[in-house]
Amino acid sequence: MTTTPPEPRVVILGAGFGGLAAARALKRAPVRVTIVDRSNHHLFQPLLYQVATAALSPADIAAPIRRIFRGQRNVSVVLAEAVAVDTASNQVILSDGSLDYDILIVATGAGHAYFGHDDWAASAPGLKTLHDALVIRQRVLLAFELAERETDLARRRASMTFVIVGGGPTGVELAGTLAEVSRQTLARDFRAIDTASTRVILVETGPRVLPAFDEDLSAAARQQLETLGVTVWTGVRATDINDSGLTVGGERIAARTILWAAGVQASPIARSFNVPLDQVGRVIVTPELLAPGSENIYVIGDLAHIEQEGSLVPGVAPAAMQQGAHAVQNLLATLRGEPRAPFHYRDKGLLATIGRGAAVAQIGPIKTSGLPAWLLWLFVHILFLIGFRNRLVVFIQWAWSYVTFDRGARLITDPLAAQRARHQDQPAPPPQDQPPAPGVGPA
Amino acid sequence: MTTTPPEPRVVILGAGFGGLAAARALKRAPVRVTIVDRSNHHLFQPLLYQVATAALSPADIAAPIRRIFRGQRNVSVVLAEAVAVDTASNQVILSDGSLDYDILIVATGAGHAYFGHDDWAASAPGLKTLHDALVIRQRVLLAFELAERETDLARRRASMTFVIVGGGPTGVELAGTLAEVSRQTLARDFRAIDTASTRVILVETGPRVLPAFDEDLSAAARQQLETLGVTVWTGVRATDINDSGLTVGGERIAARTILWAAGVQASPIARSFNVPLDQVGRVIVTPELLAPGSENIYVIGDLAHIEQEGSLVPGVAPAAMQQGAHAVQNLLATLRGEPRAPFHYRDKGLLATIGRGAAVAQIGPIKTSGLPAWLLWLFVHILFLIGFRNRLVVFIQWAWSYVTFDRGARLITDPLAAQRARHQDQPAPPPQDQPPAPGVGPA
Repeated sequence: MTTTPPEPRVVILGAGFGGLAAARALKRAPVRVTIVDRSNHHLFQPLLYQVATAALSPADIAAPIRRIFRGQRNVSVVLAEAVAVDTASNQVILSDGSLDYDILIVATGAGHAYFGHDDWAASAPGLKTLHDALVIRQRVLLAFELAERETDLARRRASMTFVIVGGGPTGVELAGTLAEVSRQTLARDFRAIDTASTRVILVETGPRVLPAFDEDLSAAARQQLETLGVTVWTGVRATDINDSGLTVGGERIAARTILWAAGVQASPIARSFNVPLDQVGRVIVTPELLAPGSENIYVIGDLAHIEQEGSLVPGVAPAAMQQGAHAVQNLLATLRGEPRAPFHYRDKGLLATIGRGAAVAQIGPIKTSGLPAWLLWLFVHILFLIGFRNRLVVFIQWAWSYVTFDRGARLITDPLAAQRARHQDQPAPPPQDQPPAPGVGPA
Repeated sequence: MTTTPPEPRVVILGAGFGGLAAARALKRAPVRVTIVDRSNHHLFQPLLYQVATAALSPADIAAPIRRIFRGQRNVSVVLAEAVAVDTASNQVILSDGSLDYDILIVATGAGHAYFGHDDWAASAPGLKTLHDALVIRQRVLLAFELAERETDLARRRASMTFVIVGGGPTGVELAGTLAEVSRQTLARDFRAIDTASTRVILVETGPRVLPAFDEDLSAAARQQLETLGVTVWTGVRATDINDSGLTVGGERIAARTILWAAGVQASPIARSFNVPLDQVGRVIVTPELLAPGSENIYVIGDLAHIEQEGSLVPGVAPAAMQQGAHAVQNLLATLRGEPRAPFHYRDKGLLATIGRGAAVAQIGPIKTSGLPAWLLWLFVHILFLIGFRNRLVVFIQWAWSYVTFDRGARLITDPLAAQRARHQDQPAPPPQDQPPAPGVGPA
């Protein structure tokens, strides 16, 4: 176990799109590859919102890392949390050990940023992991259950108010899908409440949603959101977030469910490199994707800050995959004694989905929205889903829910969640004062 | 909300097979139905072991109760925990309120029994709910991850030892499937361990597995288990269960994963009825399925103790469904002023699955095992799965895993589970003494 192999040891931190692409590019290379990830699966993050909104199951958008590399014998997978890198001794420090490397590829990505209000995290969960998605799914489903049993109209209204903070792709996807869920999926499931009266509010601090797109597509996206029933507020900031609601542009909104889709914070491991970071903690890499001043540490994906023609390479899957492949080309070149090449990002365009048959697409000069954009989005995402089985199952479930508006994964799996939610709502009063069920008298 | 409707109020506790059948039988009845369940979904329990062993996702075997009754307007669903019944005032006491009834149908089923050793529950989880299944899935997957990083051979062996306590259908299903997972599914996924050396031990106190079947089928089941690589121990008792292992017939077995599939304990709510219960807490009902001395409380499913031709009606889904329909016939008869009829169980036979192409079936005089029994089992279970979508998706996933031995739901979704598991294993030593990753030196 502790013998040093003859081949160089390449350690890849993170099994996201970047890390996966790097490991695959090393398939026939004379190196020993170790992938370290704190979860045992690669996550197809672009569809994570579908798990959070109960359309897909976690297994539909995640693949065990070991299964992906089953056939690549020079790869071993370690389930562990990398907490720091000792660049002097070429060691990765794990939460429960350490790992020597000759060449390191860091692809640990980014998480949420609450702009210095980490206390908001408990009231406004973000969406980065499967765990996040299951937490959000549970909150959303419980909100309707609580509203159904709620007799106090103000509290019922708060239970049926969903606020999404952040008008980027994730915020737009969540807002559009929640509007569909409330108006279509749940329409006939409840007796006491009219789910069509659910308020879904999307709050964006900037002047428009999907700022990465051209203005006309942002406008098209907003129009499609409003058609679905989403209230879009731009140019206002969300503050004072707690379990009772939030303040938007001075107005207090009582909302039981607040979702966070704003702000990015790069993985904290970069701080241990002792290199300059940008304002969100990304490593400002060299054109060859190296950490500044290092010869054997490559940084790729959402953790890398690299500019091209004056603008930042976006934190999207295609960029991460291109960087993973390029970092491998460079490290193999150095092993052959050849020079490294600078990275060039090939922009594949931008796609964002809003809801059923609603999306926007911007590919070079081509701009489209509505059904054609949505079909393109659907095609691309199913195409890239890892593993044939997932593709087929996901396609069937989409086809099914497209026809029926049904969502199969509407499960509250935590047995105590409902009670906790109720008690969180009203800690003070004794049971008999709690909102009774339909047709109910006090105990 | 609190107005009393003209029709009688029928409250059904539990949305299992019995409660569901009762509610459906009331479809066109002039009554107001309220279904109370602590989870928001009906669970297809016969396939729960497939979730626990990562073949299926929770959503594949569960359907939201609200969706099932979307079209049945006289049904409302309440997500709540029923803790007691006040038979004097005809009230169900919820953990957060109460609910009046005119007629009550109790179908809250049964849970595990640890024979007075409830302290074993933490070390040997049972399999009754989706939550249980996800806990077991996580433990099983983590056990292999820990073994892969473990350098101490004794600890590695303990991590690769799985003991299932109880030789009934659930125990046999879990043991057979875990043997398949270790020998087929994971065969090429690990580098440091040979998963084919995994020990799967099935412990049964009685003289044979599947005691409900005829002896020759029990023998066939045992033979099929052993062919899959399961060690079957009968006539021995498991004792002294803790996180390090258990004692079986005097011998101490170091095992990191122990699963509990023995013992049944009826739902505790029956204790509040003040009626005679059998030794596992079931209500000894009248032939009309009434609680003794009551005119408006029916008890059905696993919670009901009823004998027929001298033997207990088994706690299986068909019996619960027949009882649900029969209880409704009786309550509707009394509403019409007609007499109640006694319940007669129509035995549909017994089916138990062991693994891929391995099962036993006993239907009246017909007895079969192996592939034909398995195909019959597959057909019956897919047929009864609730909801077309589930049927189709489950069928595809089975077809897929049958061909490839793959299991799609191998996900550890709790981000901290791995670390907790490591620390649970070795609380004492500081990080640098913890078992290192492959090719690793001390920090």
